[in-house]
This record gives sequence, structure tokens and C-alpha cells, in this order.
Amino acid sequence: MRTLIKGGTVLSTTGASRADVLVEGETIAAVAAPGLFETADEVIDATGKYVLPGGIDAHTHMEMPFGGTFSHDTFETGTTAAAWGGTTTIIDFAVQPKGSTLQPTLDKWHEKADGNCAVDYGFHMILSDVNDTTLKEMQACIDAGVSSFKMFMAYPGVFYSTDGEILRAMQQARQTGATIMMHAENGIAIDELVAQALAEGKGDPVQHGLTRPPELEGEATSRAIRLAQVTGAPLYIVHLSASQALAAVAEARNTGQNVFAETCPQYLYLSIEDLAKPDFEGAKYVASPPLREKWHQGDLWRGLRTNDLSVVSTDHCPFCFKDQKELGRGDFSKIPNGMPGVEHRMDLLHQGVVAGEISLGRWVEACSTTPARMFGLYPRKGVIAPGSDADIVVYDPAAKQTLSAETHHMNVDYSAYEGFEITGKVETVLSRGRVIVSPSGFTGSAGHGKFLSRDLCQYLN
Amino acid sequence: MRTLIKGGTVLSTTGASRADVLVEGETIAAVAAPGLFETADEVIDATGKYVLPGGIDAHTHMEMPFGGTFSHDTFETGTTAAAWGGTTTIIDFAVQPKGSTLQPTLDKWHEKADGNCAVDYGFHMILSDVNDTTLKEMQACIDAGVSSFKMFMAYPGVFYSTDGEILRAMQQARQTGATIMMHAENGIAIDELVAQALAEGKGDPVQHGLTRPPELEGEATSRAIRLAQVTGAPLYIVHLSASQALAAVAEARNTGQNVFAETCPQYLYLSIEDLAKPDFEGAKYVASPPLREKWHQGDLWRGLRTNDLSVVSTDHCPFCFKDQKELGRGDFSKIPNGMPGVEHRMDLLHQGVVAGEISLGRWVEACSTTPARMFGLYPRKGVIAPGSDADIVVYDPAAKQTLSAETHHMNVDYSAYEGFEITGKVETVLSRGRVIVSPSGFTGSAGHGKFLSRDLCQYLN
Amino acid sequence: MRTLIKGGTVLSTTGASRADVLVEGETIAAVAAPGLFETADEVIDATGKYVLPGGIDAHTHMEMPFGGTFSHDTFETGTTAAAWGGTTTIIDFAVQPKGSTLQPTLDKWHEKADGNCAVDYGFHMILSDVNDTTLKEMQACIDAGVSSFKMFMAYPGVFYSTDGEILRAMQQARQTGATIMMHAENGIAIDELVAQALAEGKGDPVQHGLTRPPELEGEATSRAIRLAQVTGAPLYIVHLSASQALAAVAEARNTGQNVFAETCPQYLYLSIEDLAKPDFEGAKYVASPPLREKWHQGDLWRGLRTNDLSVVSTDHCPFCFKDQKELGRGDFSKIPNGMPGVEHRMDLLHQGVVAGEISLGRWVEACSTTPARMFGLYPRKGVIAPGSDADIVVYDPAAKQTLSAETHHMNVDYSAYEGFEITGKVETVLSRGRVIVSPSGFTGSAGHGKFLSRDLCQYLN
Amino acid sequence: MRTLIKGGTVLSTTGASRADVLVEGETIAAVAAPGLFETADEVIDATGKYVLPGGIDAHTHMEMPFGGTFSHDTFETGTTAAAWGGTTTIIDFAVQPKGSTLQPTLDKWHEKADGNCAVDYGFHMILSDVNDTTLKEMQACIDAGVSSFKMFMAYPGVFYSTDGEILRAMQQARQTGATIMMHAENGIAIDELVAQALAEGKGDPVQHGLTRPPELEGEATSRAIRLAQVTGAPLYIVHLSASQALAAVAEARNTGQNVFAETCPQYLYLSIEDLAKPDFEGAKYVASPPLREKWHQGDLWRGLRTNDLSVVSTDHCPFCFKDQKELGRGDFSKIPNGMPGVEHRMDLLHQGVVAGEISLGRWVEACSTTPARMFGLYPRKGVIAPGSDADIVVYDPAAKQTLSAETHHMNVDYSAYEGFEITGKVETVLSRGRVIVSPSGFTGSAGHGKFLSRDLCQYLN
Repeated sequence: MRTLIKGGTVLSTTGASRADVLVEGETIAAVAAPGLFETADEVIDATGKYVLPGGIDAHTHMEMPFGGTFSHDTFETGTTAAAWGGTTTIIDFAVQPKGSTLQPTLDKWHEKADGNCAVDYGFHMILSDVNDTTLKEMQACIDAGVSSFKMFMAYPGVFYSTDGEILRAMQQARQTGATIMMHAENGIAIDELVAQALAEGKGDPVQHGLTRPPELEGEATSRAIRLAQVTGAPLYIVHLSASQALAAVAEARNTGQNVFAETCPQYLYLSIEDLAKPDFEGAKYVASPPLREKWHQGDLWRGLRTNDLSVVSTDHCPFCFKDQKELGRGDFSKIPNGMPGVEHRMDLLHQGVVAGEISLGRWVEACSTTPARMFGLYPRKGVIAPGSDADIVVYDPAAKQTLSAETHHMNVDYSAYEGFEITGKVETVLSRGRVIVSPSGFTGSAGHGKFLSRDLCQYLN
Repeated sequence: MRTLIKGGTVLSTTGASRADVLVEGETIAAVAAPGLFETADEVIDATGKYVLPGGIDAHTHMEMPFGGTFSHDTFETGTTAAAWGGTTTIIDFAVQPKGSTLQPTLDKWHEKADGNCAVDYGFHMILSDVNDTTLKEMQACIDAGVSSFKMFMAYPGVFYSTDGEILRAMQQARQTGATIMMHAENGIAIDELVAQALAEGKGDPVQHGLTRPPELEGEATSRAIRLAQVTGAPLYIVHLSASQALAAVAEARNTGQNVFAETCPQYLYLSIEDLAKPDFEGAKYVASPPLREKWHQGDLWRGLRTNDLSVVSTDHCPFCFKDQKELGRGDFSKIPNGMPGVEHRMDLLHQGVVAGEISLGRWVEACSTTPARMFGLYPRKGVIAPGSDADIVVYDPAAKQTLSAETHHMNVDYSAYEGFEITGKVETVLSRGRVIVSPSGFTGSAGHGKFLSRDLCQYLN
Repeated sequence: MRTLIKGGTVLSTTGASRADVLVEGETIAAVAAPGLFETADEVIDATGKYVLPGGIDAHTHMEMPFGGTFSHDTFETGTTAAAWGGTTTIIDFAVQPKGSTLQPTLDKWHEKADGNCAVDYGFHMILSDVNDTTLKEMQACIDAGVSSFKMFMAYPGVFYSTDGEILRAMQQARQTGATIMMHAENGIAIDELVAQALAEGKGDPVQHGLTRPPELEGEATSRAIRLAQVTGAPLYIVHLSASQALAAVAEARNTGQNVFAETCPQYLYLSIEDLAKPDFEGAKYVASPPLREKWHQGDLWRGLRTNDLSVVSTDHCPFCFKDQKELGRGDFSKIPNGMPGVEHRMDLLHQGVVAGEISLGRWVEACSTTPARMFGLYPRKGVIAPGSDADIVVYDPAAKQTLSAETHHMNVDYSAYEGFEITGKVETVLSRGRVIVSPSGFTGSAGHGKFLSRDLCQYLN
Repeated sequence: MRTLIKGGTVLSTTGASRADVLVEGETIAAVAAPGLFETADEVIDATGKYVLPGGIDAHTHMEMPFGGTFSHDTFETGTTAAAWGGTTTIIDFAVQPKGSTLQPTLDKWHEKADGNCAVDYGFHMILSDVNDTTLKEMQACIDAGVSSFKMFMAYPGVFYSTDGEILRAMQQARQTGATIMMHAENGIAIDELVAQALAEGKGDPVQHGLTRPPELEGEATSRAIRLAQVTGAPLYIVHLSASQALAAVAEARNTGQNVFAETCPQYLYLSIEDLAKPDFEGAKYVASPPLREKWHQGDLWRGLRTNDLSVVSTDHCPFCFKDQKELGRGDFSKIPNGMPGVEHRMDLLHQGVVAGEISLGRWVEACSTTPARMFGLYPRKGVIAPGSDADIVVYDPAAKQTLSAETHHMNVDYSAYEGFEITGKVETVLSRGRVIVSPSGFTGSAGHGKFLSRDLCQYLN
């Protein structure tokens, strides 16, 4: 089966070329001058469209247990929404329960995802317990294609690791080449501020932001970087939201240390003003780190340009407003943390291109190529090149759309971007050579997506 | 005429893929999965070899007038040597004589190069006089494909521009989108140190280094950056040699300012110890900025990794030891400034890959893709993609060679890298589809190379 | 003759003590517990008042030639106004005319000041020509008590020195221990901006500010620091006005380099909004560097707290609005540069104490003790200690006054601080043991003030 | 009773003056020109000597419980040794036992010290438990003259406070004006490294240094600064030993934050090479933070010059080699942490004056005046001024001595500075007007020293 995508502008990290793309089976067979190939089993007309490697969302939480409930997208609904939005790979987090070990965790997550995904997927492992057993299991995880381990400096009593535990895990990461991913907020200090706010009767969602000041994200980021320096481990800061944290990352990167960071669309477009919306509306925007004051946004865009922020992921972790977010009415600390977004990342970042914040090449790089290289998927994913998986998005840069819970495909009852007007729209999506989104709708299926065994980070000095 | 390069590993800025490259006429027709195309008019076996975009040396001086003599490579000998070394594009400097204007300068350089080059070439313009006429001519230069203008904070009385002249030129650059390239050394202060050294009877070549301290490169770099900030002009620092200058560039880049820098192989591999070689041997290494103490080298390699140094060029400007360098016996200030290097850049930087200093992708990026994007040649040059010029190097990463004046092809009687043992070697070179270097030798011809009309820098925010 | 100042609070750089001060002849005989001495020839009751060392204004320009006119205060009127304001020492600038040498300059300034001053005075030397003669004269100047030399990176064609000249002078300073004082603005670039503004018909006073952007003060400050680093010379930045310059000074001081800076009250209290006053009113505020946007003020106060700004001087250089400032109607570049202020420095900085910006000790330090130490006058001046000159101010911290041209004693027809309401007021001033200001008025006389032969800076590492 | 110190050179933070000092009873009656007072009950000839305010050692641990033993100096032996060395005030640490509260702790320490001290003394409080009770007691402590509270980021399970506890204490400090003193090492990570070293059979004293890398002091210092920034509390970093920590302090101080730091003589003169001495000799040098590599020393001296290090204290905490240090043979983690030093601080820092590292004024400032101002004792202590306590040292700058356990007066069986040759020596010491050390020996007595009720820090912005 041969598919030919004709007449489009093929995008890469370094720019754009007019070229046709020939797909054979699940992979790309050739990138060719327009017209070199004239026909194929199926021909997709991409005239006037961008042809880019499918998006890779390196940070999602499908059906994740949190505070007695679960994030509301299943692997099926979540990956389907991803596909709609031009994302053809997700890397989700397997969550080690305290007291358990890594292998059963991984087994369980395979079970959840297997046969249910519309696009390909990989796993990171959340390391909740650091002990001799789990440290030893890190190598087995890597051998099983899970080469990155997330730890938390926040959420004491839940995911929180002490600096000693982080140090041990980083030593192991140094030895094995694994990447440590860090949720960098000083949760110990934050929990004190949270308790004080609640004791003073301040229970509104905006308190979620006020009790997690950006200085405490900056602090934890600096600390993680120092621990990584002492141990020699590669470090990847997840969902960076604050200028203070960005400054710490930039300083470390200037020295050539293996430190990387991602940000998320919500930190580029939303702010603490959303958290402060009345009538508990702010609960829709509760995630950690919290939305910041608006002035941080300019710094984050600049960080994307300077590559101090290398990746844009979503931290997709949707909870319905009704019944889920509402668990925290009157007590913001009980609001499930997380926001939906997996469907809109490619579109939202394309607005940065439209606005002149980033270049076309940078859009592709931050949303697809870099996550592939960062997490050991390149060149299988993240590039339009012969031999690569035919994960391809045909994107119409001129189309208009309005984001809304009415029309989105994520399994959640609100949109964080309700009413946002977007220039550009996904037209066609191929996953491993199969058209799963076409102009007429979703044509994929649960179970098409396969597990991706990942290599180590490809950026290490 | 179709040429097929089979079985190789195609390199890009983001990594490597096994792929065949089909060339049709002067351009690349397709990059394809191995075996997709079986035959062509000519087939080049690249098994076990890298296939990479031809090198772009953005800083050369062929037959340049300097102090009554000329750099010893003509456009013919120089571009032929470039071809031998895997460089398929040079950007040379047209030198406005004081009192003249830009158009006649450009005419003259076209005359020099036209019909004589073995590979494609472009021009930068050296702006020696800033006045209403020349400022007005900048737009005409851009229209004629010369979109970058070099100025000097060194060489008072020769190329030197005052800060006021720089400011004016930068204002014009801001308006037109042109790039200002800067030789950043505080020549006014340096000339004082030179005069003092000579007055004290210190005439040896090492004095060239001692009278041009790295702090004065750092200073001038900071000053150029500040002037660029005030005017909003894009700035490209040429031949950055000193950690102090790198620090200034890194700081500006962190803020997102349009500041870029190149370094050269001589600053990565040679040092002031070479300048201090006895018996006037040091004269071979006289160039400006001078070779630095060895500890700068580590910082420069790190700068290449962090992209604070974006490009590696050669500043190729060869003067023979005999008769030319010897003009400065006893008075180092009379030694013609410049070193040969256009032939060895790709090989020398490949040693950085071998040593683990930079990745394969970074090698291609710094030596080819970035100069193409920086100087408005992309995607015509700098990438292996359909529609791009078929400037292609087949490189054997395992071959061994020893650099020597005995064997090099530059028209100069010494090698700055005499005896250097190199891992890796150019095997075949195509320029616009024609094989100009084959395993059996040079198969190109003077006049094959064409003038490249360049666009503006493609990195601007 | 013994004078006893009783019942006051004696201030020093480190704080305050209740103590009486016994003066015998021209010097302080003792600082004693209250009541230890009961009587004296004259007793001054300082109950409820501060007793502090007389102010030292290290930057004044009396009857200075500028653009065909002279600053309007003579040594007599200027030092009398200083006395009224609690300043008992000024250091004025002898101005070497281009083409002349230092000794005749010094002779001329002695002639101007001798017999005319109400308070003690010293001289800095403005080095307008750098050549073998003047460099040799630097040592003679030092021997004659003039140990600091001011140079200009601004005012091309008038006072401007090239970087090469600065380098030479700094080398000489390094050898002799002299201090180089620097007017740090990039005058070459500024003159270009000025010419452009005038060419565009922009002649209003506010253009004075707009054509001298703070980045160009930051640049010149960085450059001066780098040249000082290369030569090893002590450097003192005069009249620092911009955050960018402060940042450069702070960075150098962190490394322990001998770099110091002063600011002036006008930069702490006035802004470019004053320069923009209509009807040519802005001309009253034309000085260089220009008044900045208001946000710089907070940084300057912080610099005073952190000691990155060590001294507050006035740069007193008064030109009458009528006939003098008016020379520049329609062409801001012809407005004589300078503002009056010698009378108000102590009062204006006391407002910083009142507002909590600086401590009492810091007030004394920045306005008296540090200038004494910086310019080789300590412990003769700058401290209330036995053996020191009895230059003493009795200051009423609770008094109220309003600044105005109607009431000030400077010989100029406007006040830059017209209508400013001040808490605190000088009550009594002693100069070398003689009461020259008493609650009933000025009791001093021209000719009382003597020339101060100064030692080298006492802060050098 | 009147004592007259004649003919000396009186030192202050800003320099030196020839002056006589008249003491009446316990306080200074006058500082006077030489000869103003001719006679007194007792006359001390200070010709050729320095007369300076008595040293203040703001960090001592007398008879401190640690790991089942006690530091070996009692308040009597320790303060007597202090007197011998020219230190007339100590501020010791009352140590709250876990589970106890502050008031009984303070009572107990008063009991220990009362009637036993040879010189005046104050207390800081070590806050081991942070809870509602102890937080409330902070104000009572301040009212009782104990205005500074030390916390530990090291020693988990012993003194360690979590970041949440630190935050709470800092909030309280912000409200009350108290100073938080911080032992800034990341003890959680360090304990992991210690456990690893021991598990690998590495038990030698040098491991104490290797398991406490300077990066982890830098990290904790940054963290403490960030927490202080969030809460607005004044912060004083104790015993800063590492360049990384100094950099963090300097950066914070540049912003004007209320952050201060002390270093100790051992970090200026000793290094990890001492810790590595064979035959368990290194145990003598075990203290926390550990001695660092020698290159840190230059940075610390620079920090003293730039005032990023404001105070020199000793962290005097002596344990005998025999029986005490020996507890850790084979297991470095069991070696009592601490070194003797209270007797030698003034002499050791005078070597910095001799070597040109610091000025005379800076010697007095770092060792006496600043600790007085920092800890609310000024002007009662820390200055030679009327009304101040007559704590005075007559110091012979030309005398020679050799430090040795044979001759020192501290109650410990070794000297960390054995064999150090010192220029300068204490000749006479007055404590509150009484001669307690004379050229013929110790003339003081236990019980002469009184408790000092201290005010708040006097440096706060």
C-alpha cells in the first residue's frame, strides 16, 4: 500500500521545502521533488498545506488515579483526541503506587493501554519509592523501553521524594543513562502555606496559585539542578511555568550541563487571572505548578526561542468540572490537579508562529522533533525522513476554528480555552501510514496505536 | 542525468537516517528508503559512509589585498582546496577600499571570482566608509544578493569604523534586515599596546598575541552588542576567540537578542603557544584575533554545544611564510594577518565528533546548515532535501589522514596543522549534481562555481 | 579658643552616640561623654540635633568654562552656598584646556580659588590631552595634592579621550596610584544621535535625554571597567545615572576590582519628565548624563544601600536659565550642560533617611566619610574624631523647609528642586573650628577656606 | 576610677587616628587628642600599639552537648581563652533539646554561664522544634535579649528543620524583626552520601569532607535565601565555607535583600588537606561545613573585602583529640563536629592585614563592629566611643608569637593552628573598664562577664 502526499510544504526543524512524501506501508519511503512520483494507491492533496511530522506529547496522564478519582480521559478517548489535534505519539506516566514496585506498575499500565490507543504511545515511570529494589528495577525498565523516571519535589506524602532519595535515583540515572524528570516545586514549604490559607478560611481556587509562589518553583528547580550536578545525571524539568525557574535552567544550560525543560500551552496562554474567576470557575484551571501572573508568559516564549525551553507538552490530566473539580468546593486543596489539553497543543503553538513568537521550524522542533530526540524515539518519530514511521500531519495554516467543549473530543466537560479563536487546523493525520484523521473525520481505531520501546535521551553531552 | 548515492547514512542537524539520495541534474530529486531506487545514470556506493550537505564556509578571504600584498589563494586555488575538504560553498568578503563605494567594489569582486571558482560562492561586503552614499548602497547590495556587511572595531586607519559609524550602519541594517558582521576587538586600545611593545623593542610574533588581550575582544563584543541593542540590528560576531567574548554573546542570547557568533578551527585547536614558537615560526599563526591561551578552547567547545557559537568558519586568509609572513621579521605588526584553513574545516570539526565534544548533527549544523540559514541560502544549500542543490559530501568516518603542506591543496607554503592526525576523510563531493571530487581526485573545474544571490538571515526574531 | 558642642547625637558611618564634641582651635580635641566637659569659650547647644562631619562634595564645577560661557557660581558664591547646606569641603575640577598642560592649569585654578572660598577645597584634574608631557605631569600633580584625574568618553572634540588615551592614562594611574574618574557615556555614538535629531528638526530639551540612551552609559561604563581591568588602574565612575551602568559597576565590584561610583541627587529625585517640561522649562534640567526614566531611581537607592554606589556628589554646575540656558532655544545641543545643587545635597539625602531608603550612618558615609577616604582626605576630613579638622554640622532632623530659588544662596536664577518640601535643616556649621553658619545666618568669609592637598584613594586593594 | 590609654592609634571601621582614650568606670568617657588628658588613676602606655574595640565572637559553643559528649571548654575556660585573644564578647548558642521549649532552654543556659564568664556574653537560640509554642516563645526570647534564632538544614534527626518549619519560623522572624541564622548544608542528601561511604568501608576523617560537597552548601544557601525572600525575613548564613555559597549570598545582596554571612578563620587558613592527614590526625579538623579545597580561600578573602562576608566568627566548639575525637575512629560520622578557635580569631585575621588581604578598618569591622551592629549590641559594644562599654584591646602589631596547644588557654589538647607563626599580639585587654589581660598575664575573673540583652539587627532595610 502506497500513499502519496502531494503538493505540500514539508516542514522540518530547520525550515520548509516543497516536496512530496511517499509512504509505503507503515513508514516513509521517500521525500521527493514535487512530481517525481506521479501516482500511488492513495493520493492526498496537500497543496497549500504544511506537511509535518506528527506531534509528540511527552507528558500526558490518561486515567490517572488522583485523590480517589481518575483523570477522565481513558487511553482510548485521550489518544483519539490527540489524533484529532495532530498528535500521533503520547508518552504517558505509569504511576508506581507507594509500597509497590516498578515491574507490576509497568504491567498494569500496559494492561490499561494495550489495545486501546488510537496512536502510538510510550511510558515514563513515576518513581514513588526509592529503595534498593526500585533502583535495581530502573535498568529493567530501560531494557523494557522506559528510559525516563519522574520524581516529585512536591506532594509530600503522595509522590514526594526527599533530596536523599532524589540523589540516589540520580546516581542510578547517571550509571544507566536514564533521564530524571522533575516536578520542581518545594512541596514542603508549599504545604505549610496551604495549611495556613485553609486555617485562615481561604478556600477559593485562586488560593491554589497564591500558596504556590513562583519563587518556590525557582528554588526547587535550582535544587534539582544542583543535585544533578553533584551526581552527573541528566535532568528534565517538567511543566516549567515561572520565570524564576527558567532563569535557573538557562544558567545551568549555559554551563553545558545536561539540563532540559518543557513548558505547556497553559503557561503560555493562561494566567492566575483565570484561577481567580468567580463562582468556583477558577477550579477549571487548577494544576500544579499553578498558572502564573501574565508577565511570565513573555519570558516563556523567549525561552522557547532560546531553546532554554526545549519541549512543549501538555501535562494533559483532565478532570470534569462536575463531580471531579467540585470535590474541592470550599477547600482548594481538594480540587483534583490537572487540565485538559492534549488535543490543542499543535494548534495553540501554531498561534505562536502566527504571532511571530516562534518560527515554523521551532514549532515542529518543540512539538515533535525534540521530544523524539529527548526521549529516544528519533528518527523513528519526530521527522519526515525515509525509514521513519509515517506519522504525518497535513495542516492547513489558513483555516479558522474556535476551541470549545462543545466541539472538542477530549472526555471532559469544559475547555480551558473556551472561545479561543485559532488560525490553522489539522486536516489529515497519518499514524504509521494509516489515515486516522481525514477532512471528513476520525478514521482510526482504538488498538491501532502500539507501545513504543524508547532508547535513552539523544542530547547527552 | 541522474545520480544515485546508495547505502549511506544521511546526516541532518537532528541526526542520521539510512537513506539513498537521488540527484537529478543540479538538484536533489529525492531522499528515499534504501533500495527504493535501484539504478541511475551514475551510482555512488556510500555504504559505511556519511552523506551530508556540502560544507559552507561563511568566512574566507581569497586574493585579499592586505598591507601591500595579497592573500595567496586565488578564487580558483582556494575554492578547489575547499572542494577537496568537503566545502561546496564559500562566502568571501568584497573589500570596499576607503574612498570608494560599494557598487564598484562588488563589480570588482565579481570580476575576480567570475569563471574562476570550483564551487558556488557568495559575497559579504566590508563596509570601510560609512556615509550617505554607502548607506544608501546597502539596499542595492541586498538586492544584488549581498545581505551582510562586515565592520571593524579593529585596524584603525584601515578598516576601522567609529561607534558612530557603526551606529549609523546598524540603523540602516535594522531598516533593511541586513546583518552586521563585526570584527570585535578594541583596535584603538590595541594599537597603543602594539606601539608600546615595539617601542620597547619587542618585535617577535608572540607579541601579536600579548598586545591583543582577550579582555579587549570581550569589551568590543559587549560594545557591539549594546550598539545592536540600541538600534535593533541583527549582529553576527566573526571569529570569536576568547571566553570573555563568548560570555558577552551568551548573555545577550539569553535575553533573546538577535546576536550570533562564529568561531574558527584555529581557536579550537591552536594556542598562543604556537605563536610563541621560536625562529619566527610563530608568524605562521598570526591572525586577528590572536590565538589564545589553551583554557579558552574548552569554553569554545562548550559554546558550540550550547549554540552560543552557531557557526564554524575558517577566516581562511593564507599568506606564505616565505616573502609574505617574512615581511614582519623583527616587527610583528608588519606580519600579514591570516592563516590558511578552508580545506580542513570539515575534517577538524569531525575530530570534535570523534572526541565526543559535539554530536554528528551538531557537526552538520555548525558547518553547513546554520551558515546556510544565517546567510540566506537555505534550503538551496545546507540540507539534503528535495529541491535543494545537490551539494553533497560522502565522508568516510573511519579513514585516516595526516594534514601537511606537502599534501594540501591550498596555495600556501605551510600548514597550520602540520602533522595533525585526522580520523575521517572526504571521499566524494558533488557540487550542484556534478562530482567534483572523487576517490581518484579532483574532477571539477574552475568556472563550475556560480555566484549565489543570498536572502536575509533566517534566524531573526 | 575652645568650642563645646553639647547634648547632641554624634553620627558616624556605623551609627549614633550621645556625646559632646570639644573643639580646640581648628581641630577636634575630644569626643566625650555628655557633661564630661562643662564649659568652653563657646558652647553650642545641640540638644535634639545631629552632630555630623561636614559634608564633602567631591564633584563641583565653579566658574567653569563651557561653550563660551561660565558656570554661574564663583568659588565664593558656590562655597558659601555649600556652607549653607552643610558642605564644608568641595573638590572642584581644574580643566586642562586642549593644547595646554597640567601645571599651568593647576596654577590657574589655584588663582581662581585662592582667597575666595568659604570652605576648604581640593582639586581634581580634567585630563584633556594625553601625551608624554601630561602623563609625566600626573606625578607632579599628585605631589601637589591632586591625586585624581577625570577623563571623558563623551564630548568628542572637547574633552573626549580615545580608548588608547584612556589606556595610557590608566597605565600611568596604575603606576602612581592615582584614581581615574570617568564620565562614562559613549559620546561618539551619542553625537550621531544628536545630529540625527537636529537634522529631523527635533530641538527641544527632552531630545537631550532621548539622544543619550541609558544603554550608552552602560556600554561606556563597561568599557571603562574593562580598560581598568587590563591596566590595573583604580576607577571611579562619576555621576552614574542609569541602571545599566550600575549593573556593570556591581558586577565588577563583586569580583573585587577597584571600581567605585558616585551618583547625584538629581538622578535620585528628578527624571526625564522634568526634561520634557514645556516652554523650554526642560532646559533647567539639562545635564549629562541626562535625567532618566523614573524606574532607575529605585535601583540607584538600592545601589546606595549595597555600596555599589559609594558616594553622592552634586556635579554642581549652575547655568542661569536667562541668557545661559537660553543659548540652546531651538537647539538642545547648545544648552549649557549642568544643574545647580551644591547647597541641597545633605538635605536631599536626608530625605532618603526619612523615607527609610538609607540609614543615618549611610547618609554620613555617602556624603562625607567615603568621599574623604576615596579622595585621600581622611581622617582630616569626613569623621568626628580627635585630631580631625573641626568641620562639623549641627543638623536639626525635625525642622521643615521648602527649597526655592527665592531662598537659596547659589548664584543661579532657578532651582531644580523648586517647591520641594524638606524635613531637616542645617542649623550650625563649623569649618576648621570656626562657626561659619549659625542659626542667625552666614558668619563665614571668603578666604577662610584653604586648599587641601590630598593623598591617594584609601580604598585600594 | 579613671584609666587613660595614652599614645596609641585608635582604630575604627573607617581607619586610624592618634588618640588617647579615657575610661571612667565601666565605660569610655572620652576619645581625645593626645595629651589632652594628662593623668588618671591608671595610665596604660599604648605607644606604637593599636587601640581597638574588643573582639566580638558571634558564634561559640561552650560546653555544648553533642553526640553524648560536650564541647570541652566551659564558659569559664572558654571566655578566659577569648580574653587572652582579645575577644571581650561572645554570643553562644542555647540549644533547645527536641521536645523541650525555649524558655527552659534559656534558663538552663543562663545557669551554665551565670557567674562563670570572664567576658560579657549573649545568647542566640537554636530552634530545634518549630511549633505553635516555640513560635510564640520567639517574642519572649527577643524581649529577654535573645533576638536571633539558628536553624539547621543539616543534621536530620538532631537539629534539622524542614523547609516548612523554616518557612514558619521565618514568617515569625519577619513579624518580630528577629534574625534567622542558618546552618546551610543539604543534610538530607549528605546523609545519603555518608551512608554510602560507610557502606563502602570508607571511614577515615577525610570522608567527612568528601561526603559534604560544596555544591550542597551552595544549594542550601540558595534555598535559605529563597525562603527568606518569600517570607521577608532577615537571614544570616553562619560559617560559610564554600565559593558556591558565597556566590549565592553575593547575588542576593546585590538585589538588596537582607542576607548576611559570616565565615570563620579555619575556612580562610585550613583546607581539606588537613582533613586528609594520616593516622586519624584529620579528625582534629572535622567540623561542618567541612574544610574545603584551597582555592575557596581566595574567594572568601575577596568576600571579606566586598562585604559579601560581613563577619568573622569562630564556630568555636572544641573537642579533645583523646577520648572525644577518638569516638570516631573507623567511623568518621561519629567524630564530634567542631574545632577550637575562640582564642586566635583576632590574631589570625590580623595576618590578613599583614598580608594585604584586608585593611585595618576591615579587620575591626569584621571582628567587632559589624557583629555588634548585626546582633543588636551597638554602640554599647563594637566601637571606641564615649558611652560605649570600655571593652578595649591594646594590640602590638609588631610582636611575634607561635600558636600551639602548649601555650594556648583553651581547654583542649590540640591546636588546629599548631606552629602557625603570627605577627601581632594582644598586650592588654579591658572588659567594661577592668584590665583583664595585662602584659603580665590574665587579671580577670570568672563572673566578671555579664549577660548582654541584645536588640534587633541594625542592618535591616
